[in-house]
Amino acid sequence: MEGRKLLLIVLDGLGDRPIKDLGNKTPLQLAAKSNLDWLASNGACGILDPIAPGVCPGSDTSHLSLLGYDPFQVYTGRGPFEAAGAGIAVKGGDVAFRCNFATVDRDMRVLDRRAGRIKQGTVELAKSLDGLEIEGVRILFKAGTEHRAALVLRGPGLSADVSDTDPHEEGSNILECKAIQPGAEKTARIINEFSRIAHDTLRQHSVNREREEKGVVPANAVLIRGGGIFPHLKSIEEKHNMKSAVVAGVALIKGICGSVGMEVLEVKGATGGLDTDMMAKAKAAMDAFVDKDFVLINVKAADICGHDGRPMDKVKVVERADQMLGYIRDHMTESLVLAVTSDHSTPCAVRNHTGDPVPMLIFGEGVRVDDVQTFDEIACAKGGLGRLRGIDLLPLMLDLAGRNVKFGA
Amino acid sequence: MEGRKLLLIVLDGLGDRPIKDLGNKTPLQLAAKSNLDWLASNGACGILDPIAPGVCPGSDTSHLSLLGYDPFQVYTGRGPFEAAGAGIAVKGGDVAFRCNFATVDRDMRVLDRRAGRIKQGTVELAKSLDGLEIEGVRILFKAGTEHRAALVLRGPGLSADVSDTDPHEEGSNILECKAIQPGAEKTARIINEFSRIAHDTLRQHSVNREREEKGVVPANAVLIRGGGIFPHLKSIEEKHNMKSAVVAGVALIKGICGSVGMEVLEVKGATGGLDTDMMAKAKAAMDAFVDKDFVLINVKAADICGHDGRPMDKVKVVERADQMLGYIRDHMTESLVLAVTSDHSTPCAVRNHTGDPVPMLIFGEGVRVDDVQTFDEIACAKGGLGRLRGIDLLPLMLDLAGRNVKFGA
Repeated sequence: MEGRKLLLIVLDGLGDRPIKDLGNKTPLQLAAKSNLDWLASNGACGILDPIAPGVCPGSDTSHLSLLGYDPFQVYTGRGPFEAAGAGIAVKGGDVAFRCNFATVDRDMRVLDRRAGRIKQGTVELAKSLDGLEIEGVRILFKAGTEHRAALVLRGPGLSADVSDTDPHEEGSNILECKAIQPGAEKTARIINEFSRIAHDTLRQHSVNREREEKGVVPANAVLIRGGGIFPHLKSIEEKHNMKSAVVAGVALIKGICGSVGMEVLEVKGATGGLDTDMMAKAKAAMDAFVDKDFVLINVKAADICGHDGRPMDKVKVVERADQMLGYIRDHMTESLVLAVTSDHSTPCAVRNHTGDPVPMLIFGEGVRVDDVQTFDEIACAKGGLGRLRGIDLLPLMLDLAGRNVKFGA
Repeated sequence: MEGRKLLLIVLDGLGDRPIKDLGNKTPLQLAAKSNLDWLASNGACGILDPIAPGVCPGSDTSHLSLLGYDPFQVYTGRGPFEAAGAGIAVKGGDVAFRCNFATVDRDMRVLDRRAGRIKQGTVELAKSLDGLEIEGVRILFKAGTEHRAALVLRGPGLSADVSDTDPHEEGSNILECKAIQPGAEKTARIINEFSRIAHDTLRQHSVNREREEKGVVPANAVLIRGGGIFPHLKSIEEKHNMKSAVVAGVALIKGICGSVGMEVLEVKGATGGLDTDMMAKAKAAMDAFVDKDFVLINVKAADICGHDGRPMDKVKVVERADQMLGYIRDHMTESLVLAVTSDHSTPCAVRNHTGDPVPMLIFGEGVRVDDVQTFDEIACAKGGLGRLRGIDLLPLMLDLAGRNVKFGA
């Protein structure tokens, strides 16, 4: 029998806490959301600890969990996953670093660790360093948001056991990269050589000449820190024999999903911001089922409202997401296994991620329907799925979809 | 204080999914089951993932879990546990293989991997090979269902790192067994010698002469595959200081329970089929408490209905199981700790095991009674025990029975 198809919708940062000024309701409880409530009424609900109870998840670690990878085993640090998020197609064994564009003087003393929080021109600056080769090792270098960038080394004989070049304080010189463990000497040499080339190249770059003409500090150096080896991850297709794709606006999510072999669908209007075109994302996802078995949609907007502390905007985001679910209801086949949940709570009162569990629902033929009528943090806690962990969700969907493998006889 | 006694009733394959044609009810919801409902009303309920959420259990792995053994740690493959299931009293360190009776020509070329799906005479054929000794290693060989058989090697210097003799396709010769890892040479030699003896013995066996007279292909060879070492399992008695017994109709369950030191009670009329005498099983179990502390009853019938896709038969099986529970209610002492659950779901619509959780109830003095009134998949999800894993159940029963050991001071 061919397995059924899976759609996982992650409403990023959706979970919240009761807000006093709103009658002790969460934004999700306040929103008009007839489609989400219909799915909850006709599906099975529960609450999900994206990583584990009380653990405050990043979007990277929680998406790894939701995709069935234990972050405690595979998450080797922010460097490797930020590189994926910056759009570098990282591979197992790559050594990755987090970088800043910075301003240094002639003696390589750091004047500004963030190059005046440079916002424009970093893509061009990064391009001038991307694709170098040093000692047979390929250098991948891409700009991130604002002054941030990612550096990846790919080739033989590399190690992540090297020290930072970032002095972590202004007024100090860029540090020499050193091997922390035997066998890392080659990597340290490459980092130092890259650091030197970066300064030579960037200080002459037209972007910096223009900045200096305007009286703005140049981004004439790269500070390097937090090296880590990207883990060897079995792809979703290898693990579960499913062709898969992701629809997301945010680079980090695209990067994580890409690194486990999901096709990253580029959707016009999917910005990762409040202005994102959710209907376009839903359409792209449903269209992808022509040749995909598993699609993940990430909608970032609720998280942004949480970080900004704007609960009424979060209510509006939920209502727009509900319309997106309406499109999916109208276009899904009977055999689809649909799950709606979140990667973490971002309570408006906290303005950051918290470890609060998130609501989840699973809808589709064969689900043991419970009596939960609304999709929110409080109602779902009484649902038939109980309280699960992020890493349990995909196995549950696979089992319902008839795509599991029996353990034993 | 002497600990209280424990009775664990496993209604095999009991869990199901809502069935459209039956008003979106499960067979368990439809059945008249006053005893199960009374126990649920006066006990504590919950749902149980026999292994882990979404993991589809075999009956072997799930019974290991229910008996407190982590299958991810101790399950070394189907060979060892099928050997136990075939009725061989396997011990830790035994090397076990799955086998087929097959038909070969004079050049040892495989003509039929299943010897015409032979059904009768395999017990006699197996007896002619059971009990051999080769290089100081004892050979245990028993027939399983139809063409299947199990081979166990017991003795010094053995290894499971040897290749199969089964070519896995007809028209090819029986393969020579080879050591895959250093140190496995002796085992490979024994397998090859056994393979040769098996052919010499079986081709002259009266069962095969009669088959040939009837124009049926002979079972004149044994194909060997899937070697594994049986794990060293601490017995229930060593772990928990309880004398224990099992009442089951199916060889696999008897084998698993026997391998952890439970006495296997032979009960007349306990067939492992739909015709099994459940009242005889209940009586045997209750009688066993004369000298046992822990008894497990497995009733296979619901699983058979699930595999066959016959929901109304499953309803009837539940109703008969309920009468069995009536006998237990009438004959149990006040101090008994009773649990009723299942080893996995076998939904009639799927006709196979799934990872859906199963309902559970615990009854006995001291239980925190919740407000669940009926014993079914949906109602129990609201119970006071929440959602647990198979491996958690025995510790819970032991604790209630006053048989646990404090962890700490």
